[in-house]
Amino acid sequence: MTTVLKLGGSLLTRKDEHESIDEAGLSTAAAAIGAASVDELVLVHGAGSFGHVHADAHGVSVEAGTSEAAAVREIHASMGRLNRRVLAALAEEGVEAIPVRPLSASYRDAEGALWHATDQVAAMLAEGFVPVLHGDVITTREKGATILSGDELVVTVARSLHADAVGLCAGVPGVLDEDDSVIPEIDGYDEVAGVLGGAAETDVTGGMAGKVRTLLDLPIPARIFDLEGLPAFLSGGDPGTLVRGPDVE
Amino acid sequence: MTTVLKLGGSLLTRKDEHESIDEAGLSTAAAAIGAASVDELVLVHGAGSFGHVHADAHGVSVEAGTSEAAAVREIHASMGRLNRRVLAALAEEGVEAIPVRPLSASYRDAEGALWHATDQVAAMLAEGFVPVLHGDVITTREKGATILSGDELVVTVARSLHADAVGLCAGVPGVLDEDDSVIPEIDGYDEVAGVLGGAAETDVTGGMAGKVRTLLDLPIPARIFDLEGLPAFLSGGDPGTLVRGPDVE
Repeated sequence: MTTVLKLGGSLLTRKDEHESIDEAGLSTAAAAIGAASVDELVLVHGAGSFGHVHADAHGVSVEAGTSEAAAVREIHASMGRLNRRVLAALAEEGVEAIPVRPLSASYRDAEGALWHATDQVAAMLAEGFVPVLHGDVITTREKGATILSGDELVVTVARSLHADAVGLCAGVPGVLDEDDSVIPEIDGYDEVAGVLGGAAETDVTGGMAGKVRTLLDLPIPARIFDLEGLPAFLSGGDPGTLVRGPDVE
Repeated sequence: MTTVLKLGGSLLTRKDEHESIDEAGLSTAAAAIGAASVDELVLVHGAGSFGHVHADAHGVSVEAGTSEAAAVREIHASMGRLNRRVLAALAEEGVEAIPVRPLSASYRDAEGALWHATDQVAAMLAEGFVPVLHGDVITTREKGATILSGDELVVTVARSLHADAVGLCAGVPGVLDEDDSVIPEIDGYDEVAGVLGGAAETDVTGGMAGKVRTLLDLPIPARIFDLEGLPAFLSGGDPGTLVRGPDVE
């Protein structure tokens, strides 16, 4: 049983202050993970108030690339600082966490397809380690380097590892309807286009519409929930919204 | 034309002082690389006075593993500090250097075979970046995590990338004979067993006998030289000792 869990950057950092950790959010998440008994767990965290400022300063985004190694090093180093803080918080809760840095292990081809090596991640899981990946800057053919979002990373890695469950721990308790109630299950985008926006709208930066669309493509059941729902998710419960695409068996 | 160049840890650090940079050695190496016009260059550096102390403290070696994530994080972080210094020195000389951390991209299987992802390295080269790898601690099946030497990494990466040339920049001007003269070419181990030791002796920690044996297995011509020979190597010259195994065309 392999679980891939994304921790949103907004839970771990304070968005309004540059490279500032949300100590309460980080320790709550780490404690929930430390208390859970998940067989094989892969963690992915977002950027929050790390990474983005450096990416913006160099004009680098998911679409726009840079050929300057200095920009790549700077964005990547910022994410490294956040990753070390996440690793330290997890270690305090007894989680055998070790880093996997996407710049070192992935790239995007000229058609925009993301490749991330996962044989080494599978080896880590087999040895009892908890690999901790993160949104990053990665090499992109014909563009130099571009931003890889944590959301895109989660689905690519979950697919490559043939994961059994995917969870996105976000700042909201699930996908919300017009009355701000959590929608318990989504099987297709049409059901939620009214609240999330139409199919024509693009959303590559981690918004809810993008999350739902990406998760619907997965052959793996996925859940979206908040920090309160994290313990339930880790114990096999059913917090938040279940996103179940047509390829889920 | 792809070249894989290893910079020995003894050139970049002061071995007798914990985590101490040899500023003269590092800047000399970086300047030579900055001045060269190599088409596609992959750099690998050793550990020197970084990494080893932490590995020894946790009883981790090429053979002996650890299942403690804290030990993995500590050894890896030490190599990260050295890697950042190497990247900074290269950047000062105009080299578009970006890091590739082997813990994130490689593992050893239960038979001891090393796998290192290189598709992302090839993408970096194609985009004009200079990837900088290093000796590291990596996941090893049935052992937790063990040490990966820079020498082993060089040959694995050179093979996977179908490199055209391999260079080991070491603390000696080449493989030396009984009179401490550089042997210009080695085609088989028998020729040098008298000076390097017999075939029965094992050497996994980066000694000259191990280097020569490993390079003889490569289907790529390789050279061993010192910092003085580095500019000549980078301009296609013939410093030090050429090691040319039976599989070199």
